[in-house]
Amino acid sequence: MNAIPAGDTAVNPALRAATGHESADLAAFAAALRYEDIPAAVIDRTVDFFVDWAGSALSGGGQRAVGAIERFAAAMGPQDGRSEILTARRTTSPLFAAMVNAAASHISEQDDVHNGSVFHPAAVVFPAALATAQHVGASGRDFLAASVAGYEAGIRVGEFLGRSHYRVFHTTGTAGTVAAAVAAGRLLGLDAKAMLDAVGSAGTQAAGLWEFLRDAADSKQLHTAKAAADGLTAAFLAAEGFTGARRILEGAQGMAAGMSRDADPKKIVDRLGSRWTVLETSFKFHASCRHTHPAADALLGLVEAHDLSPEAIAHVVAHVHQGAIDVLGPVTDPKTVHQAKFSMPATLGLIAVHRRAGMAEFDAYLSDPAARAFLDRVEMALDPEVDAAYPRRWIGKVSLRTGDGTVLEGRVDEPKGDPGNTLTRAETDAKARRLAAYGGMLDAAGIDALMPRLWSIADRNAVGRLV
Amino acid sequence: MNAIPAGDTAVNPALRAATGHESADLAAFAAALRYEDIPAAVIDRTVDFFVDWAGSALSGGGQRAVGAIERFAAAMGPQDGRSEILTARRTTSPLFAAMVNAAASHISEQDDVHNGSVFHPAAVVFPAALATAQHVGASGRDFLAASVAGYEAGIRVGEFLGRSHYRVFHTTGTAGTVAAAVAAGRLLGLDAKAMLDAVGSAGTQAAGLWEFLRDAADSKQLHTAKAAADGLTAAFLAAEGFTGARRILEGAQGMAAGMSRDADPKKIVDRLGSRWTVLETSFKFHASCRHTHPAADALLGLVEAHDLSPEAIAHVVAHVHQGAIDVLGPVTDPKTVHQAKFSMPATLGLIAVHRRAGMAEFDAYLSDPAARAFLDRVEMALDPEVDAAYPRRWIGKVSLRTGDGTVLEGRVDEPKGDPGNTLTRAETDAKARRLAAYGGMLDAAGIDALMPRLWSIADRNAVGRLV
Repeated sequence: MNAIPAGDTAVNPALRAATGHESADLAAFAAALRYEDIPAAVIDRTVDFFVDWAGSALSGGGQRAVGAIERFAAAMGPQDGRSEILTARRTTSPLFAAMVNAAASHISEQDDVHNGSVFHPAAVVFPAALATAQHVGASGRDFLAASVAGYEAGIRVGEFLGRSHYRVFHTTGTAGTVAAAVAAGRLLGLDAKAMLDAVGSAGTQAAGLWEFLRDAADSKQLHTAKAAADGLTAAFLAAEGFTGARRILEGAQGMAAGMSRDADPKKIVDRLGSRWTVLETSFKFHASCRHTHPAADALLGLVEAHDLSPEAIAHVVAHVHQGAIDVLGPVTDPKTVHQAKFSMPATLGLIAVHRRAGMAEFDAYLSDPAARAFLDRVEMALDPEVDAAYPRRWIGKVSLRTGDGTVLEGRVDEPKGDPGNTLTRAETDAKARRLAAYGGMLDAAGIDALMPRLWSIADRNAVGRLV
Repeated sequence: MNAIPAGDTAVNPALRAATGHESADLAAFAAALRYEDIPAAVIDRTVDFFVDWAGSALSGGGQRAVGAIERFAAAMGPQDGRSEILTARRTTSPLFAAMVNAAASHISEQDDVHNGSVFHPAAVVFPAALATAQHVGASGRDFLAASVAGYEAGIRVGEFLGRSHYRVFHTTGTAGTVAAAVAAGRLLGLDAKAMLDAVGSAGTQAAGLWEFLRDAADSKQLHTAKAAADGLTAAFLAAEGFTGARRILEGAQGMAAGMSRDADPKKIVDRLGSRWTVLETSFKFHASCRHTHPAADALLGLVEAHDLSPEAIAHVVAHVHQGAIDVLGPVTDPKTVHQAKFSMPATLGLIAVHRRAGMAEFDAYLSDPAARAFLDRVEMALDPEVDAAYPRRWIGKVSLRTGDGTVLEGRVDEPKGDPGNTLTRAETDAKARRLAAYGGMLDAAGIDALMPRLWSIADRNAVGRLV
């Protein structure tokens, strides 16, 4: 663990070489960001992600782990307030609305992702921003500006913490706490100094470990729930004058010193105000861990081009980056639907059998012998080209051997949902409607009423209740 | 960052060599621990620490950082409930009672400490245990058994995470989350399996970085507040069936893999049921960071033995362990009372001038020129003997040079408050009364009424309200 007390030998020379004050620069940017300063294309894409997120959050309504967190919120929090728990159709204080909505956002594995940071911004930013906006009566434009600030901050913190961090830590939990603090802090009107306090209090709460993957435990939902709630806590405390460390990201006993070996402080402030990472963020198409998507798209291309039946496929090698092996490797025999979403053989099995790996296909996976047969037919192999391009680009490569010994090679350079292969607004609308229906909290008329409210968020004088 | 994915080269061979299931053994011990199985001396000492803790918690009442957290709790939590916020004299849900009481417990730097783990158990265990006990109507005996379980678990987790962890992470925040989960989980009646879920959900939330020390920021209070609240959250979620990682402590992507280089899994289960770490825990005598105490006692011995006036002392070298340099080194010119408590020159200056470094002396420190003059007269030096004995023993050594060039050497082998140099019950009672009076929430009659309720906690059929 890379303790770097003053004067000690740094494990990471970049941290020692840092002479600026990157945490403060990030906080100042977030505090000052106005709706008017954000390019229209960035706002439009943020609205797309907001609609996409609302679908994901509503889809989590009926799921066990989310229900446990909702019952906890009901026991610990107030029974009324101005902030809305989407899946429970009730209101409470912002803390618990953010917590439950964030838990619900990430469970279907359909929420967005930024490739370079391997960070899922929507699942932590929108819950904190929505709960705070509803609490303070913020406008739709302020809500969107705060959400952009959260994306821009969280993604840069994720990039800063780097690949070594992601090998053990769930970046959406750690960087996500800072992202949520920035979004909530922007809506509370924190100035640059108070925003830096919020970042400091967020960073010192940041947590989330991948160990749960081996056991198919519920921790992923806890990570997003706590990132949103803890970040919101940091912002509200800063508004009360509660102070935080000024260099929680890059300092000698800060996040990178404790939780990264390859952190580069320059990434915290990379082209703030000119590079918009919102535009680099990807929609998820398949309902599984993003690390499965490049290979899934590459396999889908082969299956469709050669019209392969599942029985014709004897063996598939997914050529992947190391991060995929770290996250997916521990899942050897998926026992739950959620664990299946972290299994390359499960995901490729569904693609081979159904040419689709959506919510319905995963829900039926445990009793789908044709797809499960691929547990023995799929393996992952580290690929130097794919690994070198990662995380900036997520290349998909598969080698497929048929029963008669033919070998076919499949490749995609941008998986479906990436900025160069994105969803149309019609596709986003349809995806969100499917997810909302899946959650079962709203009937068709309710979804028809909801969708225009989501798409027109920028025009609302006060965000108010959505569902 | 010591990522140890399956098959990778382990940075820490001890983690790879672990073949048992230490997290499960610890959880099983905590779930099964009964009051009747705990030696009377352990129970008695736990009562001592409970009384000592109540004084610390009440002392935090008037302090700014605690007030900010209490206002946050009032805004986010319910206005009634069965769990008591000691300093606010109101009740709420267990989550917020644990949060505020834990924030208040640690701010005066008078709460207990376990030397070997450098962990402050009272500040995180009692807030979680008391809030849960009041919520479920537990007896005093169950409250004490749960508290013992929390101490025994948290101390062992702190020892397990080791010195490399403590260099960057505030162990009371990280191990404290697990300790609080165990204490709350015991009161919720979790069985061994559910207790392991609670440990898993606690460990994946564990956080707290030392970076705030440089800025005298308020994070220390956030760390105890969140450890108690997050641990309690983990326990209540486990009671709802929410699952956690089964090897969150020792696993390949668990706490030690992410946050330690020298973790030894055997320490998690070291003599569970026969070694009682409660009996190894120290009271704090001076109102400052424990790392200042050995040198303070050594200097006090010299000052008293030679009846030295402050003016007679030209220079003092405190011969310390590396951990003292890591934690105290960043504070070069204390700007706040709380920061002064993390300054070796400030603490030794008060000892030289007042022969005492209590709450009152620190409160007056910033306008105490005689004590502040020692900022230039005190230095720390790494001492091989002291460092080798640490953290098992905290030896105090100082070299003092007088104005006429005489050099005096002072030494203590056990600072005041350590098990071999402990406080009597009368001293503990008097200390708790002083601290409660300092907080200003109770008048003398209120304190007189409170103290017998604290000392007789074991006899209460239901813990109920204390204040």
